[in-house]
Amino acid sequence: MISSQGKTARRVYMDHAATSWPKMPGVNAAWMDYQERVGITAGRGSYRSSVLAQSIVEDVRRRLAGMIGAKSASSIAMVHNGTAALNLAFAGLLKKDEHVVTTAVEHNSVLRPLHLLSKTVGIRLTIVDCDATGWVDPEDVQKALEPNTRMVAITHASNVTGRIQSIDAIGTMLASRETLFLVDAAQTLGYTPINVEGLGIDLLAAPGHKGAGGVMGCGMLYANEDAAFQLNAPWVGGSGTQSESLDGPTEWPAKAEAGNLNIPAIAAWQAGLKWLETSHQESLNSNRETFLVHPVIEENYRRLLAILRQWKNCSVIGHGWETGHGMNIGLSSNTDHKAGRTHHASVDAYVPVVSVRSNAPSISVGDLAAILDSSFEIEVRSGLHCAALIHEKLGTLLEGGTVRFSIGHTTTREDLDHLEIAVQELNGVMS
Amino acid sequence: MISSQGKTARRVYMDHAATSWPKMPGVNAAWMDYQERVGITAGRGSYRSSVLAQSIVEDVRRRLAGMIGAKSASSIAMVHNGTAALNLAFAGLLKKDEHVVTTAVEHNSVLRPLHLLSKTVGIRLTIVDCDATGWVDPEDVQKALEPNTRMVAITHASNVTGRIQSIDAIGTMLASRETLFLVDAAQTLGYTPINVEGLGIDLLAAPGHKGAGGVMGCGMLYANEDAAFQLNAPWVGGSGTQSESLDGPTEWPAKAEAGNLNIPAIAAWQAGLKWLETSHQESLNSNRETFLVHPVIEENYRRLLAILRQWKNCSVIGHGWETGHGMNIGLSSNTDHKAGRTHHASVDAYVPVVSVRSNAPSISVGDLAAILDSSFEIEVRSGLHCAALIHEKLGTLLEGGTVRFSIGHTTTREDLDHLEIAVQELNGVMS
Repeated sequence: MISSQGKTARRVYMDHAATSWPKMPGVNAAWMDYQERVGITAGRGSYRSSVLAQSIVEDVRRRLAGMIGAKSASSIAMVHNGTAALNLAFAGLLKKDEHVVTTAVEHNSVLRPLHLLSKTVGIRLTIVDCDATGWVDPEDVQKALEPNTRMVAITHASNVTGRIQSIDAIGTMLASRETLFLVDAAQTLGYTPINVEGLGIDLLAAPGHKGAGGVMGCGMLYANEDAAFQLNAPWVGGSGTQSESLDGPTEWPAKAEAGNLNIPAIAAWQAGLKWLETSHQESLNSNRETFLVHPVIEENYRRLLAILRQWKNCSVIGHGWETGHGMNIGLSSNTDHKAGRTHHASVDAYVPVVSVRSNAPSISVGDLAAILDSSFEIEVRSGLHCAALIHEKLGTLLEGGTVRFSIGHTTTREDLDHLEIAVQELNGVMS
Repeated sequence: MISSQGKTARRVYMDHAATSWPKMPGVNAAWMDYQERVGITAGRGSYRSSVLAQSIVEDVRRRLAGMIGAKSASSIAMVHNGTAALNLAFAGLLKKDEHVVTTAVEHNSVLRPLHLLSKTVGIRLTIVDCDATGWVDPEDVQKALEPNTRMVAITHASNVTGRIQSIDAIGTMLASRETLFLVDAAQTLGYTPINVEGLGIDLLAAPGHKGAGGVMGCGMLYANEDAAFQLNAPWVGGSGTQSESLDGPTEWPAKAEAGNLNIPAIAAWQAGLKWLETSHQESLNSNRETFLVHPVIEENYRRLLAILRQWKNCSVIGHGWETGHGMNIGLSSNTDHKAGRTHHASVDAYVPVVSVRSNAPSISVGDLAAILDSSFEIEVRSGLHCAALIHEKLGTLLEGGTVRFSIGHTTTREDLDHLEIAVQELNGVMS
């Protein structure tokens, strides 16, 4: 509740696009349980608790594979974060003179490794523009393709505007080509259904600690059989197998997992995945017409949008689905397997990440975030959000970026109540 | 205690060289406290709890720098494990045709990245032999040096035999050269004093989760000013700074820390480092003549050795200090700053990692470890221990490696009691 000094009595966290907090029920406890009862490394020893550790890793692979529609648990490599997954894919697959298409929407975890490889290895990079909501027109991707383009790398949803890309259309476009299709699912895994087989995705990278249910220190790279076979891991080390050889293992995912896995974090992720599976199942059974996996998130997301649109100091960037397209939140077309739930690829579709720009030249986005933090204990992020190129398209580069509100699985109605009161107070004071 | 079925009523963990278990008091609790009270990413947001997160990272850098005698906290880059630290150093510094000297003692986290770079980048590699205890003669390193050798990379202590290398002599040898001196402190950080300035070490890599006090998912790479300046990070991503640029940050340690740091693990490490600092201080104040930082570890180590020497089925590899050199356990010569505590570089010095070989051809090392696990709940590791080349020198390659007993900061006298009873029982049954 709001005290007479305008302070909330509780912390309201709206930076889930950075990392989720609080964690889903049971996630932190699973980490602790692992540390206290098991505690040891996976895949290295033969004693019984070591075998138990390895079985947790295999179970998480299986659950992740199920979550993204992958054929096999062994298509999932466990890594330490999303950035590692992306660097592994790019450095492991791209060679001199090969052509790569990416987009202006990307996070720097995509843009910077590709830019580095253009300087060190000599790949050729085409960066496709986006519109003022952070959406990339698949036709522009089509135009950027060359006959031998090696890879198209695109984020599933912008970490700045929340806009979901039309990866179904891009996947269809690439289906008849040798081009590898890489999707950065950092903002979508756990929030929207993903079907790598149905969408023709060859590589899918994601951290564990955002919407996907895990904690910091874990991530995944899915590679289909062809991509996995072609990938030469750029970093190597102990593997617990074939230890007499100076070459690391040649099979996937072992070749991507040099050194100790962060097994307590993976045990925590297991608990989060179980929670998500239950939530997702409820969602599928409810015959809902939208595809954010959890109805509570959708309700909170709609409320967030409504509150931010009332805030006189700011303007919401994108999220125009309310007026233009009705209920088309969530993933588009062939990601959904139930009949009657397909949407056209170009509809506005969003994850619950909302950026606003300041309406008053005298008040910076940093000021707005600082006021929310200091006066209301509402934690949001201001700035460029590690996305180098999108702000020019949004018109937010010179003003230092946006204020980003991002909610998640554990955001509550009370969190939104607090935000609403804060906005009402600020509308009274600042207008 | 031992039941009538020969089962211990408790688990006895002797695989600390893989990872420490149980963790030091307060370490797991610090992880949980961070997750529950703070929970967010470091160095990305400007709200207050994000600033608190960053301050934890900076404090851990400071403590690690103090622990290894580094001049500046900013010489420490935080990474996700020891393997990442080593790959970062090798791939970041070594170029085509450059000559690198390493040793047959190394873990595959050193050997495999160097071997990979010899194939991909074209570095030239010389691997110096070791003796039957896993010790590398500094004179052999000297002989391997070329006028322009770029790097000498050596482990501080073998993860198979526990033998500490004469890094003081090697450091002295390299002092007048441009050659970079890299030390893998995976088995020593937290067990023995290390002084990078005094020893002329340019790069020091270590995981957090072994003797150093942390949990899985964190590690460090120390680089002195020159090495840090020269290093081009092989992987890049979001940095939370200069986000408008497609180039990552150019300064150390930021350029080595792409993507989210594993901040809850770093918070846990902070608790472990505080615990170690207290223990180490007590040790320094006690005027002890050996240099394992904790007297309890030394006592347990001596007891471990005595028990294993009584085991009729096995022979201890190395650890001959008892008979030959008296009390020369620990680090040699100029690592210690108190007068009167110097030792000659070539004395036997060990961390508490003890490998044994089977005396009976019919009983494999795997059998021995399995018996300890299944009959006594004593967890030790059998095999090659991710060290490709040392076993040929130890004569243990054809027999499938060794059984390795490794103890740590949280090993108790009761753990040793259990091992002693197990060995006595096995001597009765198996002899």
